[in-house]
Amino acid sequence: MEKAVCIISGGMDSALSSYFAKYRDGFEIIAVHFNYGQKTEDKELQCYQDIAKSLNAIKMIDLDLHFIKDIGGSALTDDSIAVPKDGLKPGIPVTYVPFRNGIFLSIAAAIAEKEGASAIYIGVVEEDSSGYPDCSESFITSLQHAIDKGTKPETKIELKTPLVHLKKEEIVKEAKKLDVPLSKTWSCYESSDKACGVCDSCRLRLKGFEKANLKDEIEYN
Amino acid sequence: MEKAVCIISGGMDSALSSYFAKYRDGFEIIAVHFNYGQKTEDKELQCYQDIAKSLNAIKMIDLDLHFIKDIGGSALTDDSIAVPKDGLKPGIPVTYVPFRNGIFLSIAAAIAEKEGASAIYIGVVEEDSSGYPDCSESFITSLQHAIDKGTKPETKIELKTPLVHLKKEEIVKEAKKLDVPLSKTWSCYESSDKACGVCDSCRLRLKGFEKANLKDEIEYN
Repeated sequence: MEKAVCIISGGMDSALSSYFAKYRDGFEIIAVHFNYGQKTEDKELQCYQDIAKSLNAIKMIDLDLHFIKDIGGSALTDDSIAVPKDGLKPGIPVTYVPFRNGIFLSIAAAIAEKEGASAIYIGVVEEDSSGYPDCSESFITSLQHAIDKGTKPETKIELKTPLVHLKKEEIVKEAKKLDVPLSKTWSCYESSDKACGVCDSCRLRLKGFEKANLKDEIEYN
Repeated sequence: MEKAVCIISGGMDSALSSYFAKYRDGFEIIAVHFNYGQKTEDKELQCYQDIAKSLNAIKMIDLDLHFIKDIGGSALTDDSIAVPKDGLKPGIPVTYVPFRNGIFLSIAAAIAEKEGASAIYIGVVEEDSSGYPDCSESFITSLQHAIDKGTKPETKIELKTPLVHLKKEEIVKEAKKLDVPLSKTWSCYESSDKACGVCDSCRLRLKGFEKANLKDEIEYN
């Protein structure tokens, strides 16, 4: 069986993406998680561990990327920048972490090359999302070329983005079909005990469940 | 004055690259260094600090990337893999750190976006080098596209590789012209007190000085 590196944040999108890797595409899973000083770090780590176990991951790698908090510039990593709670607006929100997926995918490429994995799965969503530039398909395509050029000639790693054109309601429905343990995923940007329900990420999640006519089983404030 | 993020390893190439940024191209310097568990980490950090000070860097950022050692797969970070000392050979040597410059440049892009810098300088050398794929011009060009796509629309960051087509002797000569403090740079892969003189990096450095008819003032074993 071929191996795929799955970047698993602990949220719904990366959980479904990694379930596609395992149960639709037949890869063995190397589960990768990044701790980067985000406000809900501990909760996301726990969710990642639960998801990785449910995937019978052959290897679990969680890495300390606290340098991302040191760089700063995002409401997710800087306590002095408030997480917006008044609804999604056009443009790039202050929760954007500069070039985060560029960093994540470069590290995933290094892991894939070292471990001999032939694919990297990432749960980026382009349209029905927070509007981050590093979630776009054109970014992923460009980075694919860079990974092709910047690794050994014999290294072949394909970036897989199975959710990039899905809407949140489709993500919820697909996750239900594949028995993704959505109650063990976490989306809230700010709280780790009960989800706030009003940050952009909670709003997108709740809208997805609502439009899918399904109940979200995590606790909200 | 515009700002440039300069990735400074502590070696000759990145020192010259950052001197070009400051003294030829007129940028203010944000000096960036990465500690990633390489065998000569402490020595490289000291050399970086000396170079950054000689550049009057407006900001010095050194980041802990020890996760690269955790990933492993290179003689530079894994004590169980010996650094080759029997001369440069064709192909990619075991000192290659998987996709290291992909990781370094992604982090530099995040810093540049956060700090409002318009350029990133990296001292990659394509031909007269160790043969790492992530030092090629085609890799840099691909990653430039990925950074363009994966950052905010208003973010404009240009990757600069002033050494990419230079030979080592040209690097030594250019460094002398610009008064780069070469005695405060370090190239050896293995030793931090006296350079071994026989690893690939020492051999390339020594060949550069020899062909430039100049004396290398660091101590060798």
